[in-house]
Amino acid sequence: MAALTSFALLRNFARTGRTVASVRPSPKLSPYPTSINFLTANPPRRFVCRASAKHDEEAAAKAAAVNADTGAPTIFDKIIAKEIPSAIVYEDDKVLAFKDINPQAPVHVLVIPKFRDGLTELGKAEPRHEEILGQLLYAARIVAEKEGIVDGFRVVINSGASACQSVYHFHLHVIGGRQMKWPPG
Amino acid sequence: MAALTSFALLRNFARTGRTVASVRPSPKLSPYPTSINFLTANPPRRFVCRASAKHDEEAAAKAAAVNADTGAPTIFDKIIAKEIPSAIVYEDDKVLAFKDINPQAPVHVLVIPKFRDGLTELGKAEPRHEEILGQLLYAARIVAEKEGIVDGFRVVINSGASACQSVYHFHLHVIGGRQMKWPPG
Repeated sequence: MAALTSFALLRNFARTGRTVASVRPSPKLSPYPTSINFLTANPPRRFVCRASAKHDEEAAAKAAAVNADTGAPTIFDKIIAKEIPSAIVYEDDKVLAFKDINPQAPVHVLVIPKFRDGLTELGKAEPRHEEILGQLLYAARIVAEKEGIVDGFRVVINSGASACQSVYHFHLHVIGGRQMKWPPG
Repeated sequence: MAALTSFALLRNFARTGRTVASVRPSPKLSPYPTSINFLTANPPRRFVCRASAKHDEEAAAKAAAVNADTGAPTIFDKIIAKEIPSAIVYEDDKVLAFKDINPQAPVHVLVIPKFRDGLTELGKAEPRHEEILGQLLYAARIVAEKEGIVDGFRVVINSGASACQSVYHFHLHVIGGRQMKWPPG
């Protein structure tokens, strides 16, 4: 708790809205043997898969994958609990959608389940997850409409390190507001 | 019917498994004022959003969008009916998954609903579609497992011309077998 709720971290997040990289709390402040630990002890430039330094993105995703199967809390728990501020676009009792802090297009929103329920990544989905997966995908359409891009948007889901997933709480990216390219990464 | 079931088209598809571009049936053979018409009268190099000639991809997607709201049949109806051959990876009573004929990675599979039910694109989804959307996303995980990429894969859904959608029958791409990049197109 201490590490992620530290005033410096929150202040930096609120100010820049972009990165936690400049905050380097002592690892001993963090009680979590988790991906949050990774984020605080080894603050990456981007807490979700980022552009600009390809090698770093892949390395960050691979490092995060170490904790993929631990079920450890992630930074998204703090965002859901509103202990870390986010620009919320849509919310209901099961789904939260908020703006990506490092957008890859004029519109870039993350849509997540409020209750992870073991759904760390799509590759771990079980039949019981079908319902929430459908709700999340429909929420993507709601988000697109709210953001004025319902006529053209791309949904992306990264599952695992080679897909560049770096937060092990299922999430989908809603991206639009510009012409998208092919292949998709 | 005549245009898409023409022997030359099927033979070309079966032989190359990749393109219908070299087949140029007379437009008068096609009775459909649809995206199938577009495909036959103006055969693109790629029937779904393709790499290599970016301008062409975008143009093809924009051209296909003209018929997006007509509810006209698409080439996927022929694939579902098995009037056009495809390399099927997974099938149940509601879902069909088959290999993309122009893969963007070692594994590239399309997952579609057998019954479109108005779901031409994600941007047109209605609450009644939540169930099939969840089933399709779970099917993506089954496909990833069958293809040996469940530890790392990306799911991509293009909705609308600016996202490069060129077949107006909802479909998701399951892509993997290589390190994916960021941004996703």
